[in-house]
Amino acid sequence: MCVCVWQQPVKQKQKGSSAERELISLFWEHGWAAIRAAGSGSQRHPSPDVLAANSIRTIAIEAKAEGTLTKYLSDADIQQLREFARLFGAEPWLAVRYDKMGWYFFNPEDLKKTPKGYAADILLAKAKGLSFSELIGD
Amino acid sequence: MCVCVWQQPVKQKQKGSSAERELISLFWEHGWAAIRAAGSGSQRHPSPDVLAANSIRTIAIEAKAEGTLTKYLSDADIQQLREFARLFGAEPWLAVRYDKMGWYFFNPEDLKKTPKGYAADILLAKAKGLSFSELIGD
Repeated sequence: MCVCVWQQPVKQKQKGSSAERELISLFWEHGWAAIRAAGSGSQRHPSPDVLAANSIRTIAIEAKAEGTLTKYLSDADIQQLREFARLFGAEPWLAVRYDKMGWYFFNPEDLKKTPKGYAADILLAKAKGLSFSELIGD
Repeated sequence: MCVCVWQQPVKQKQKGSSAERELISLFWEHGWAAIRAAGSGSQRHPSPDVLAANSIRTIAIEAKAEGTLTKYLSDADIQQLREFARLFGAEPWLAVRYDKMGWYFFNPEDLKKTPKGYAADILLAKAKGLSFSELIGD
């Protein structure tokens, strides 16, 4: 009876991990080194989902890839991303993969403030989001 | 019948993960940001076990913590650590936790060459290994 309750989160988690692996491969294909963080979101210390660098720039990424057109982040998500990036010496970025439109990358400063956190919808993506090539300056 | 065959590797893996988490906490306690890499060793791309940085230095770590006094690494382990570190812009380090003696950190250049790879025994640790404080220059 409990299986249905847990099925969706597990699928979402798998979809998230799969999207993160896709992102990792994109970086490697463009000459960057990148890793996925273990169990981000369930760690004792702040952790981004992905860390990528090319010996000049280091990028800490919170990645979202569920199948909706507006992605929401909590205040804590953004605060932890910023705190990690500040200590590590990385740029904080939010990466969102929209169904059929692919990846967009947001500077946290550009996200829409909501009562409970932040949002990144498709209009914001078109206005402020960067493509992968723009992100890495390719 | 298969349970016994798999029991030891799983325990070793858990011990490895637990040691990596301990290392992560050490960095955070000293003002560094650090993360564990997801599934290092089973990824398509090279990956260290731990990445740590303090906005000035970035350290890519291969960690070993099994309960023996000599730790062995394959040529591929060291080559992948070096390749990742070169692309990412990090310093490559081997971290070994010896039972009762704690952590020692090795520059890959200082490891003993063996026919199949590299070794770090307790004598090498005393001669060439750095303590955690020495590693971070505390």
